[in-house]
Amino acid sequence: MNKEDYFIKQFSSNKIIGDDGAVIKNTVYSMDAFFQNVHFKKEWMSLKQIAYKSMIVNISDAIAMNAKPKYALLSVAIPSTYKKQDLKDLAKGFKKAAKEFGIQIIGGDTISNEKLDISVTIVSKTKNPIYRSGVKKEDLLCYTGELGSCKKDLEKLFSNKKVSKKSKFIKPKLNPEFFYEISKYVNASLDISDGLFFELERLSKASKVGFEFFKKIHEDIGTSGEEYEMLFSFSKKDLKRIEKIAKKYKVKLNIFAKAVEGKYETKSKNHHF
Amino acid sequence: MNKEDYFIKQFSSNKIIGDDGAVIKNTVYSMDAFFQNVHFKKEWMSLKQIAYKSMIVNISDAIAMNAKPKYALLSVAIPSTYKKQDLKDLAKGFKKAAKEFGIQIIGGDTISNEKLDISVTIVSKTKNPIYRSGVKKEDLLCYTGELGSCKKDLEKLFSNKKVSKKSKFIKPKLNPEFFYEISKYVNASLDISDGLFFELERLSKASKVGFEFFKKIHEDIGTSGEEYEMLFSFSKKDLKRIEKIAKKYKVKLNIFAKAVEGKYETKSKNHHF
Repeated sequence: MNKEDYFIKQFSSNKIIGDDGAVIKNTVYSMDAFFQNVHFKKEWMSLKQIAYKSMIVNISDAIAMNAKPKYALLSVAIPSTYKKQDLKDLAKGFKKAAKEFGIQIIGGDTISNEKLDISVTIVSKTKNPIYRSGVKKEDLLCYTGELGSCKKDLEKLFSNKKVSKKSKFIKPKLNPEFFYEISKYVNASLDISDGLFFELERLSKASKVGFEFFKKIHEDIGTSGEEYEMLFSFSKKDLKRIEKIAKKYKVKLNIFAKAVEGKYETKSKNHHF
Repeated sequence: MNKEDYFIKQFSSNKIIGDDGAVIKNTVYSMDAFFQNVHFKKEWMSLKQIAYKSMIVNISDAIAMNAKPKYALLSVAIPSTYKKQDLKDLAKGFKKAAKEFGIQIIGGDTISNEKLDISVTIVSKTKNPIYRSGVKKEDLLCYTGELGSCKKDLEKLFSNKKVSKKSKFIKPKLNPEFFYEISKYVNASLDISDGLFFELERLSKASKVGFEFFKKIHEDIGTSGEEYEMLFSFSKKDLKRIEKIAKKYKVKLNIFAKAVEGKYETKSKNHHF
């Protein structure tokens, strides 16, 4: 068991923990850390991009649960060397994401620290939350978009090479409107933050199902993290409806497996923690 | 202007920011960072005490706004050297505070980091929030308990001396029942986290009043931070009622000033950021 799971298990009397967000009535709460030298290196991104991405990874959690983000709280630990312009740039990134998703930044905390460490709490509203535990046997499993580029870009960044300005690693692209529209057909979902194989392990555990793959998924695809593509399951009878909506929003669907009796475990090493 | 204020000003179109917590309808959201080498040193406290205090400083914000804490989210960055027992000890501290105040820990994030950096979000409920902006002219100003010991203890800790196990710096003592009971008489309040003088400056700014002191307050009292005593204002006509409740809960009241026309600014240096 990794340390994150072990730590979370200490609170396991609590059934709310375990999804991308915690659902209390119609409200979803999600909180994610975005720390320098853990999630990013300063040389990789501008301050505006860092602040923006710290919001997006949290907003993605809300969308994965079919919730609309409303409010954000920011805990921002800032190196004491930062100048006013740096603070302005950070604020710009937070505000850009907030504006894009109709979020109000309502509070938080700012402290002086050795490095730039951000935690974001997003409060979202939903009438119909989608959980990881909802996969039904015979469900089709699908992920959106293309996987793999984030792993490649991350390797480039680690070897001091440049990545495209459009890199999803720098600026994840979410498809909220697409996902909200298909949500009524979705049985289970989560976003791909740690890599497809690891998210599938989570789905398997939460839904108590295994997966029968239609074709082999390459390691470079299955272990590419920070993709923020959506992984979801749905009944075969809704396939045509989902395909139609995907076409409308120009979202690529990859239907790669079906849910079966059993259990799925990846042999790939989790880079996370 | 200090950096924290400058950063917050970037979001200033937003009127919700500025109190201990953000009020949305009957819900109060507060988020505070509790970082190693910023708020504590590892040698000063046990992991359980650190986790406990990280919760308490947030719960104090909720109480100061007359709100009852309900849910907590934890962002915990943990050194990779920590063993399972360390994670257990941390969890114990979080759970102790949660149990004491009837809070459910509903989620958060755990990551591996160089040092132990905690951010806590507390969701609270209130029917009658109290703001910093509520001081009325002629109001009496009061703080609870004794101030000064936290500054002394902090100095001791910095010179590698031991402090009492009962030190408020290690284990702040909140008086929620007392404060909820007097809340109907309270016009404005906040908790003393940065020191009395600095909190008074905040009250002055928010309520657009000055203060006439009944006697000089010593620098060692006025600049002692992390006290988590309550600072509040009320109308003279309610003095007897508040004194009666204070007696019931054995809370010491220090009525030290009255609100007048004008503006209060401290010349003391803010240690914060």
